[in-house]
Amino acid sequence: MPGLLNNQLLEDILTQVRPLIGRGKVADYIPALAEIPGNKLGIAVCTVDGEVFSAGEAAERFSIQSISKVLSLTLAMGRYEEHEIWQRVGKEPSGQPFNSLLQLELEQGKPRNPFINAGALVVCDMLQTRLSAPKQRMLEVVRTMAEQPDLAYDARVAKSEFEHSARNAAIAWLMKSFGNFENDVITVLQNYFHYCALKMSCLELAKTFLFLANEGRALHLDEPIITAQQARQINALMVTSGMYDGAGEFAYRVGMPGKSGVGGGIIAIVPHEMSIAVWCPELDTSGNSLAGTAALEILAQRIGRSIF
Amino acid sequence: MPGLLNNQLLEDILTQVRPLIGRGKVADYIPALAEIPGNKLGIAVCTVDGEVFSAGEAAERFSIQSISKVLSLTLAMGRYEEHEIWQRVGKEPSGQPFNSLLQLELEQGKPRNPFINAGALVVCDMLQTRLSAPKQRMLEVVRTMAEQPDLAYDARVAKSEFEHSARNAAIAWLMKSFGNFENDVITVLQNYFHYCALKMSCLELAKTFLFLANEGRALHLDEPIITAQQARQINALMVTSGMYDGAGEFAYRVGMPGKSGVGGGIIAIVPHEMSIAVWCPELDTSGNSLAGTAALEILAQRIGRSIF
Amino acid sequence: MPGLLNNQLLEDILTQVRPLIGRGKVADYIPALAEIPGNKLGIAVCTVDGEVFSAGEAAERFSIQSISKVLSLTLAMGRYEEHEIWQRVGKEPSGQPFNSLLQLELEQGKPRNPFINAGALVVCDMLQTRLSAPKQRMLEVVRTMAEQPDLAYDARVAKSEFEHSARNAAIAWLMKSFGNFENDVITVLQNYFHYCALKMSCLELAKTFLFLANEGRALHLDEPIITAQQARQINALMVTSGMYDGAGEFAYRVGMPGKSGVGGGIIAIVPHEMSIAVWCPELDTSGNSLAGTAALEILAQRIGRSIF
Amino acid sequence: MPGLLNNQLLEDILTQVRPLIGRGKVADYIPALAEIPGNKLGIAVCTVDGEVFSAGEAAERFSIQSISKVLSLTLAMGRYEEHEIWQRVGKEPSGQPFNSLLQLELEQGKPRNPFINAGALVVCDMLQTRLSAPKQRMLEVVRTMAEQPDLAYDARVAKSEFEHSARNAAIAWLMKSFGNFENDVITVLQNYFHYCALKMSCLELAKTFLFLANEGRALHLDEPIITAQQARQINALMVTSGMYDGAGEFAYRVGMPGKSGVGGGIIAIVPHEMSIAVWCPELDTSGNSLAGTAALEILAQRIGRSIF
Repeated sequence: MPGLLNNQLLEDILTQVRPLIGRGKVADYIPALAEIPGNKLGIAVCTVDGEVFSAGEAAERFSIQSISKVLSLTLAMGRYEEHEIWQRVGKEPSGQPFNSLLQLELEQGKPRNPFINAGALVVCDMLQTRLSAPKQRMLEVVRTMAEQPDLAYDARVAKSEFEHSARNAAIAWLMKSFGNFENDVITVLQNYFHYCALKMSCLELAKTFLFLANEGRALHLDEPIITAQQARQINALMVTSGMYDGAGEFAYRVGMPGKSGVGGGIIAIVPHEMSIAVWCPELDTSGNSLAGTAALEILAQRIGRSIF
Repeated sequence: MPGLLNNQLLEDILTQVRPLIGRGKVADYIPALAEIPGNKLGIAVCTVDGEVFSAGEAAERFSIQSISKVLSLTLAMGRYEEHEIWQRVGKEPSGQPFNSLLQLELEQGKPRNPFINAGALVVCDMLQTRLSAPKQRMLEVVRTMAEQPDLAYDARVAKSEFEHSARNAAIAWLMKSFGNFENDVITVLQNYFHYCALKMSCLELAKTFLFLANEGRALHLDEPIITAQQARQINALMVTSGMYDGAGEFAYRVGMPGKSGVGGGIIAIVPHEMSIAVWCPELDTSGNSLAGTAALEILAQRIGRSIF
Repeated sequence: MPGLLNNQLLEDILTQVRPLIGRGKVADYIPALAEIPGNKLGIAVCTVDGEVFSAGEAAERFSIQSISKVLSLTLAMGRYEEHEIWQRVGKEPSGQPFNSLLQLELEQGKPRNPFINAGALVVCDMLQTRLSAPKQRMLEVVRTMAEQPDLAYDARVAKSEFEHSARNAAIAWLMKSFGNFENDVITVLQNYFHYCALKMSCLELAKTFLFLANEGRALHLDEPIITAQQARQINALMVTSGMYDGAGEFAYRVGMPGKSGVGGGIIAIVPHEMSIAVWCPELDTSGNSLAGTAALEILAQRIGRSIF
Repeated sequence: MPGLLNNQLLEDILTQVRPLIGRGKVADYIPALAEIPGNKLGIAVCTVDGEVFSAGEAAERFSIQSISKVLSLTLAMGRYEEHEIWQRVGKEPSGQPFNSLLQLELEQGKPRNPFINAGALVVCDMLQTRLSAPKQRMLEVVRTMAEQPDLAYDARVAKSEFEHSARNAAIAWLMKSFGNFENDVITVLQNYFHYCALKMSCLELAKTFLFLANEGRALHLDEPIITAQQARQINALMVTSGMYDGAGEFAYRVGMPGKSGVGGGIIAIVPHEMSIAVWCPELDTSGNSLAGTAALEILAQRIGRSIF
């Protein structure tokens, strides 16, 4: 059935969703994101058989933002025992319309899952404890996974985010007050914002995240990134918590594990078959790419793929 | 690979999880549930090829409780347009440790999803509006789906639940105050508690819910129960919201859409392959069958099935 | 200094605040209240020396609404031991912008104080337990205190409130779920709404509430209404919790214990000196009479009275 | 009636409440407070006529902690217009059982009142903006008011508090995220903790706070500290918000404006008559001195003083 999949299909899908541009809103909480044109649109697919398809601005790099939360969790899974991770961060959806301190306070500083800001900050705190150079290490990892030695952080975005980091600082300090934060808050925030400021294209993202569709393995690397079971676990976490407060809607409409970023990118996984990356900067009210979600919904229907 | 599936495998799994009995807690908020022996254990599987496997007390009927929420949603999907349903109830996980009014108040009386009490009450309110005899109609439906004309409500359980219904009454009245409840509160509560008090066995449940694995169709009925897309949608809702505040953990460990009830039953779906029903009355802290979840986790590993 | 107090002063004050009419909003959640003209304005003062002053529509009756919560607490204080009351309702301000279930749920069904709806419902529940005819008994009490045998409930208002009682029903049921509500919900709601629907004039209110300025005694009755200490306690509760979420502002500006109702009435107490009743139907954002509060603020300045 | 007031009365009261020692709990969130013996007990009264009475350890200095919040508000009132203060901090009780971020987030970073941590931090932020040396200035002020040139901060307590300041840092950062915090978080926290670490005795506190009973004036200073109206306003704020989540209970039992600190001190005001300071380190569940509150309750009864 993946025979249906080709560049023309992807082009058709982009044509179909392009009219949605104008109905969403580009993230504007930092200037560096606000100035991205809202009409960027790209998609790329990598299959476990090594095929690559793409359409639109699939080769243009953008700020991956919260998609990086999957990468930091992946790194942590390789450096911590399973129970060490999950005693500090939960596995449940947050059920909150925005990234709130309310729940974090009621639940004694243990974030609900690794894909909300609080949870990703705990994961970054864990990486800071065990890695000698967490920013550099992340770069090496993604350069290897994407086979792109020039992948880099957008220093301007990282700086801009850090300058608007009051809420994330509040989150980190609140977790520290509950004993769930080990390292210097500013250092960890700096790492966190650099990860968010990674610039990657749809093609690079699809290639990087193929391991989640391929039992933990990249096609071009001998060593598995993580185990097959860990890959399934990350996919499970993405289904229940990967799309902010729109995870239920995304599962209902698209039917794939996915993770979005406020830069307008989404990665989605068809287990055992393919990874998909899509990019369109305008966001819906849940903070997920509006046209990007629509493109994934149509793609799922056209190739008859859903985990359900 | 379903060749691996046989009665002996199911027996082995029950043997493996039986030592967990004693670590959970039988629901005791109503006397009729509290008196069920905690060591009941049964499992049944129905495949889309018509095979049936079972082990333990798979033929003994128990109170299906919240598993009925999937049935009432299924009924509503056949009687309402899609948008009519989702304007009154959401599709997102609640992220709440218990069945709370807090979120319902903050979100103006619109329940987060159809599988929390508030959401199921809205669905029952919708059924009351469009069905002439909602209690009788549900009985007819499950008798047909399970091919068991003697399926019935446990009147004693329904009565006992109604007598302890203060919190559900509060939920219904709160929704009424926001204009999201049309019918008489007591009438709808009566329907709701009768649905919860349906008595079914694992074998009957697995057979009844096979339509969710089989694109909306029961094997023995000409008419589809719902469309293939609706079946996928229900599976998606079960993954994100089917296990109370343990949906993330269940997806992480078991990797299947599932719905539990405080009677100790769980149904789980392997799309395109099989439906599974398991029963063990002792619950974990999230309110899901403790040994039942463990049995599903082992089964998933043994037959190599996961949606991720 | 009360020599300053005379009808002309009260007239002057009304003249001064009349321009505020138009800046507030008449309560409109039930039709019977919404139709009251917003430009009604009256004030009355009773001193412990037996003097009575008034201005404006001081003799016109209106719906006293939540002012009745002080009367029901007073009745309960005469029929219950102190500890019996305060184990079921607290003495602390609610700190909530509106009448919320959120706090009631977090605090296990014990309302914060007797002057929020939840607390007044618990008090009415207590009265229902110990009085044979709570509605009739309240009438007798206020008729005696005000020396007005024709005081009555506005049946139309009571009926209209009952028809819009979904939120109060939710509150009562939530308390019942926590074991803090003994009697039939509908019966108690009926009592509660009748108390709210009492019609009294400023003159009648000032006279009725003089006991709070006079160590628990009405001037014309031999028996004290309550003890001097109980009168001080009620005044203390009014200062911290008598003005919905505007108690701090009222203490800051007016400096007297007070209790307001959404009908636009406010009673205020100068301990050892006088009781004051004011009426103007338009409310501020906290639900207190806007011009009424201003009139009390000016009166406090003009006669140099404040408890601070 | 203040003729009743003498040293012997105060001795009697201390004798009466001393048996309560052992029923409360010394604050232990920082080591420097935890090591204070729980059986310290002292009381001092200053009247507007210049009389001074005391008993017990009335001359021993202790950490005034949150009592300093009244001093910082007093300073701010002299350097800001009224509206400038109240647009950044509210006047309403918080209704929270502990010092929570929940409400602060729901109310967009505007603290409920100046006597909770968040509110006091905003006030300190305001002082940092307008004073060149806020720590030094506060010392000068209290030295002048108490006529004690050797009053000083306990550097060890200030340092210890700063080292345990994660929650207060979270609060400050959350307010910064809402634009309600102007200065460097660490600088303001340092000021705040120094104010809390002021060491004063009951005699010094009673003398310092007499201006609140004396229309804004200290007896020994020509210049008023604040206006008579401002003094009334502070008293009003203390009644509704001065005792953490025990303000209602304190008003009900004691009937005076008061402000407590976790060091075990309480100041209370009888307007136009006297200021009272009491000290006993063991706290009740609301964080107020247990025996200290009891002493004030008895004193109020014995001298027949209550604002109600």
